[in-house]
Amino acid sequence: MTLKPRIEAAIASAIRQGQAQSAPPRLASALDYSVSPGGARIRPTICLSVAMACGDDKPAIADAAATAIELIHCASLVHDDMPCFDNADIRRGKPSVHRAYGEPLALLAGDSLIIMAFEVLARAAEHDPTRAIQLMRILGSSSGMPGGICAGQGWESESEINLSAYHRAKTGALFTAATRMGAAAAGEDPEAWTELGARIGEAFQVADDLRDALYDEATLGKPVNQDEINSRPNAVSELGVRGAIRRLEDILSGAIASIPSCPGEAALCDMVRKTAERLTPVLPAHHPA
Amino acid sequence: MTLKPRIEAAIASAIRQGQAQSAPPRLASALDYSVSPGGARIRPTICLSVAMACGDDKPAIADAAATAIELIHCASLVHDDMPCFDNADIRRGKPSVHRAYGEPLALLAGDSLIIMAFEVLARAAEHDPTRAIQLMRILGSSSGMPGGICAGQGWESESEINLSAYHRAKTGALFTAATRMGAAAAGEDPEAWTELGARIGEAFQVADDLRDALYDEATLGKPVNQDEINSRPNAVSELGVRGAIRRLEDILSGAIASIPSCPGEAALCDMVRKTAERLTPVLPAHHPA
Repeated sequence: MTLKPRIEAAIASAIRQGQAQSAPPRLASALDYSVSPGGARIRPTICLSVAMACGDDKPAIADAAATAIELIHCASLVHDDMPCFDNADIRRGKPSVHRAYGEPLALLAGDSLIIMAFEVLARAAEHDPTRAIQLMRILGSSSGMPGGICAGQGWESESEINLSAYHRAKTGALFTAATRMGAAAAGEDPEAWTELGARIGEAFQVADDLRDALYDEATLGKPVNQDEINSRPNAVSELGVRGAIRRLEDILSGAIASIPSCPGEAALCDMVRKTAERLTPVLPAHHPA
Repeated sequence: MTLKPRIEAAIASAIRQGQAQSAPPRLASALDYSVSPGGARIRPTICLSVAMACGDDKPAIADAAATAIELIHCASLVHDDMPCFDNADIRRGKPSVHRAYGEPLALLAGDSLIIMAFEVLARAAEHDPTRAIQLMRILGSSSGMPGGICAGQGWESESEINLSAYHRAKTGALFTAATRMGAAAAGEDPEAWTELGARIGEAFQVADDLRDALYDEATLGKPVNQDEINSRPNAVSELGVRGAIRRLEDILSGAIASIPSCPGEAALCDMVRKTAERLTPVLPAHHPA
């Protein structure tokens, strides 16, 4: 069963809440543009998969958790694409938000999506205030300072980079948020689910490095070789292409091994395996590595 | 009694929570820079004054409310000063954040402060989850889309501007948040306090227009004539200087009249009167109006 319709409905409902007759129309439109097309929705999929593995006894809370994570992720893409960061003209195969709407609205769209993420959780509190508050705390620590994705991005402005803090914050934080929030949304202890999220995040980073090294811009839907251009650390430059693929496989085996015992353990292992297949690149026939 | 030490302590404590050994040091420093020097801290002062007028039975919640409002306000200043908006080089008499730390860190500092505002409220939930959730909802609707300060700023990118929605969102939203959150933090119904916040916000807008028209850059600590330069609506251009001062006095009388009956009513009236005195500019002797 695919989670996509459930995720898209939850995100669309959140975006509608940010729109009204009295809202500035172009910014309202930019919010919708910023979260679509959906793509794999990998973080909310992980979040809901964990919630379901844990019983998903309050689906409205799990939906809010999944939506909040994706809104923060989309906000970070909108801001990261801006000229002062990656200066990316395309994203998901269409003009990036600042190219389509201008820099002021891109900046505001990102800000609004961050706020909306917390609003979604605050509204979900009607179903279970204790869980909603726990979700907000996890989301906050995964997004902001000192250890969330803002911190991760912040490391790129340092002359000396703390590599493990950088990776943990920049890519890992929202993946651990996804597993932790999935568990918390279903009333389970989030701590036991941190390792799964961390390993999926690590795998995602290696897979991203591989795609960056192997694919062209048309396939990827965004500019390639950005790590090299921006002198960011990269698994392929450290391990080579085949080494990076082996590393990816190891990480995903570890991810599956880390899954806590729970009612939906088998289905969750299956989800991680499917994620692994999607992440692992097929080497082009002409590739020398 | 001044509220300043209480407010500064609460804000400093929030900023410390965003800093850690593992945080990127320049972004950590930019957070501190973004909220200092404090200046009048007018929004948190209003928030705490209302909370105290309502009994202030849980001061930790009121502190969190006041801090969250100020963090959102500071975030909006950091982002508004950036080159794609006002392109302001100075703020509070020192280089704006993007001039001191560069655009990437200014963007991230604003994002981090927004997230921190919600984290402060999520942490305060330990004292009273119901009030904390109510505060988050008010803060969200006052900050984001469709009617918060992001929406207000968004109107400046429209070809046709909805003036009342623009003013209500751009300046009014955080002032109504201040009175509403002050009341909610003390367990009172926030609705009764909306009008006071709206009127103080209106007064502040008129006073800002007056200062913009009357003072020079050195006195103001930021660039002048920004409304004219950016073709924004302005009370002085509509009513003239003396007309705008009369309008300011009318609004503040209305603000005092709107204060709901509460234990600390007299002290609160006094606070509004003091705010009025601070806001009303002394006409320079040479002014022709």
